[in-house]
Order: sequence, then structure tokens, then C-alpha cells
Amino acid sequence: MNPPTPILVFDIFGTVVDWHGSIKREVQALYPQVDADAFALAWRAGYQPAMQRVRSGELGWTLIDDLHRGILDGLLPRFGLAHLSEAERQHLNRVWHRLNPWPDAVQGLTRLKTRHTLCTLSNGNIGLLTNMAKRAGLPWDCILSAEVFRAYKPDPAVYRGAANIFDVPPEQVMLVAAHQDDLAAARACGLATAYIERPLEFGVAHVKDVSPDAANTWHARDLEDLALQLGC
Amino acid sequence: MNPPTPILVFDIFGTVVDWHGSIKREVQALYPQVDADAFALAWRAGYQPAMQRVRSGELGWTLIDDLHRGILDGLLPRFGLAHLSEAERQHLNRVWHRLNPWPDAVQGLTRLKTRHTLCTLSNGNIGLLTNMAKRAGLPWDCILSAEVFRAYKPDPAVYRGAANIFDVPPEQVMLVAAHQDDLAAARACGLATAYIERPLEFGVAHVKDVSPDAANTWHARDLEDLALQLGC
Repeated sequence: MNPPTPILVFDIFGTVVDWHGSIKREVQALYPQVDADAFALAWRAGYQPAMQRVRSGELGWTLIDDLHRGILDGLLPRFGLAHLSEAERQHLNRVWHRLNPWPDAVQGLTRLKTRHTLCTLSNGNIGLLTNMAKRAGLPWDCILSAEVFRAYKPDPAVYRGAANIFDVPPEQVMLVAAHQDDLAAARACGLATAYIERPLEFGVAHVKDVSPDAANTWHARDLEDLALQLGC
Repeated sequence: MNPPTPILVFDIFGTVVDWHGSIKREVQALYPQVDADAFALAWRAGYQPAMQRVRSGELGWTLIDDLHRGILDGLLPRFGLAHLSEAERQHLNRVWHRLNPWPDAVQGLTRLKTRHTLCTLSNGNIGLLTNMAKRAGLPWDCILSAEVFRAYKPDPAVYRGAANIFDVPPEQVMLVAAHQDDLAAARACGLATAYIERPLEFGVAHVKDVSPDAANTWHARDLEDLALQLGC
């Protein structure tokens, strides 16, 4: 018998991988003079405004790799790194392809994969998500990205697009994410939703509120806990 | 050290999976009165003309699932199956999601995956390719499809698109296929090419010429042989 939500689609940055810790560690190793915690937070803080320029039409369709690079170029002078060469900037920008999974992610996904089809559903571009999965061992069945739909979450085209790809009604797809706004937008499109607690998404100095929202179908501590709750 | 072609992209129908044998077996089991060999060949024969209607602009962008269904509806009366219900037609049309891999495919891909990023690069739609991989155990790193580029092979947009997805020059991507015309189109875009012999693609009654073309980078008996030649 099929489970009620055969297809699970996952937010990635913060939900499956630890962007803050991964960027902080790389920046600390490469540039020990920099406040790596503040650097990681500032880079990520540029993410929503950059996507908003695409969503509003101010900027034509632009991949996340290129948005990350634009934000990075703007940040470097503030952190005393204006002297970085083109090659150094390219290498640093690709840190988003090298993010490490949360400790429960690979095992949790491997369990979930036994009964569900697992897809990314990220604003990250396809190449970034594939390189990340290859390096981290994330066992996706399919890489879905805003790039496929040429629209950034929370645009409904992304959530509806995931259901259309599999030719199923939206309630047979569940978004798994650590962000209530992403889940709310998916729910408005008819998807089931699972919230994952990631209290340390922004680092130990900035613990995040992970209170449940009763509107979600599931609330799980991490991906192993979700697998357990779903009977995998 | 990276191999010279870190990214391998694969044609699917005929190269990785046995469409003729899989369709013939299902049709024989469901409708024993039908000439299942002729049925499989006729269905596949409608494939290029249907895509050509999309390529020429006569038909707007249409997924392979829908093209397959249109061809099927046209075929059924010729094979005495005009009475099939909507549910029976839908089930039969999904046989393309249930194609079986050639005997060497899973093991060959698993070996190739140790040193390369493996992607589909098929005219099949994303949902079809994902369902097929899940059922058959095909270990793709990424599902790429004509659907991502909204263009059907041999449109150069598909081959160039695969290189653009990974932000690499085309010579770092190799198309693996059992069809010389697909490989020639990829080569014209700068991709490396590997030909896979599939003499029984059209069944034992219609053995295919699998002569080498010196223009290809590699010529392999099957996917395990390709893995061996690439040192995987």
C-alpha cells in the first residue's frame, strides 16, 4: 500500500545542510582574521533581498550561484577582504556546493528513501545541489530546483510544479523544511508539510525559535525522527 | 586527479533500459492475442514524428508522457484494442515508467558513479525518469531531461544545457548513447561521446548494426565494459 504522501520534497539550506557552520569553518580556516560567524550571517542575509529582485522582475532570471557571487563581492570590503583575486572569489563562492549535512541527514534520508521518492526542492541551482549531494552522500531520487521552474520559492509555481512533475495531486507531495514561511506557502498550494527543528541554523550564538505550528502535518526534531514518525 | 570527463550524461531508452523487451513482455501478458513485437515497434516508431511536431513548432511544448499517449490512442484500433478503457490506457501508457534495465546497467552505472557524476539526458520527462530509476535501482546523481531545457534532442540546447548546468566547458561532459545520431549531435556541440552496443534494441528478430564510428571517443559493448575502459 502506498503511503499517503509518496513524494517528499526537501528544502536544503538549513534543513538538510548546515550552511552557517560550514561557511564559518571554511572562512575561519582560509581567513583567520575575519569574524567568520558574522561573515556567514551577512552572506546569508543578502539571499532573500537578491531573490526578491528576481521575483519582482527588477532582475531577469539569475541562478543562485550568481546571486551568491554578487552578494559576496559586496561583502568582501566590509570584512577586509577586498583584495581577494578572481580565483579566490570563485573558490569561496563554491563553498555553497560544499556545505556539510546535519549529522542526522544522510541516515534519515536513507531510511525515508525506502518508502518515499525523495527530491530536493530548493532555490539552489541544479549544479550546486548535485555537487553538494555527490560530496555529502545525500541519496536523492531527483534533483528539483527553482531552476526547473524559473521561479523562486515561495512562488506557488515551485510547489505546484513539483506535483505536476509527478502528475499527482498536491496532497500527495510533502514539503520538509526548517522554515515556517516556506511550509506555509507550500500548504497554501495544497501540499502536506513537515517542520524540522534546526535550532542551531544560525549558529550557537543565535539560537532559533523552533516552536511547533499546529498547521503542519508533522513536526520532527530531525530527519531521523521524521523517518521514525513516518514508519520508515 | 579529475578524469577528463567528470560528467557523464546518458541517453535512456535503448541505451540504459530495454524498451522493446519490456513493452513486449507487458503487452503479451495483458493482451495475449496481440502481436506484441509489432506493437512495441509501432509505438516506438511514432516517437520521432511526435517529437518532430514539437521541434517544428506545429505543437507547443508537450511532455513525452503525453506524446506516448497520443501515439498509443492512434495505435490501439490497428491492434484490435480500441475497446480499452481510460484506466487501461493510462496503465499501459505508464509502461514507459516501468522499463527494465539491460542486465549490465545497474552494475555498470554503480562502478561509473565512483569516479563520475552520472545524469540522465533523455527526452523522457522528469517524472518518468525518476519513477523508472526508483523501480529499477538506477543510481543517478541527477535527473536531467529535455523537460528542463524545453527542447528535444538533437536540439543543441539540450547538450549545451547539460554543460551549462554544471558550469563546465562541453568537453568535460560525455554523452553515453546507443544511437549514432544522438552522439553526432552531441559531438557537434563539443561533448565527448561513448557508443554503447545494443544489438537487440529492436528485439531478436531485428538485430541492429552496431558498427563502430571512429568519431566517438569510446566504443563499448555495454556499460560494464565502459566502466572497465574508463578505469572504474
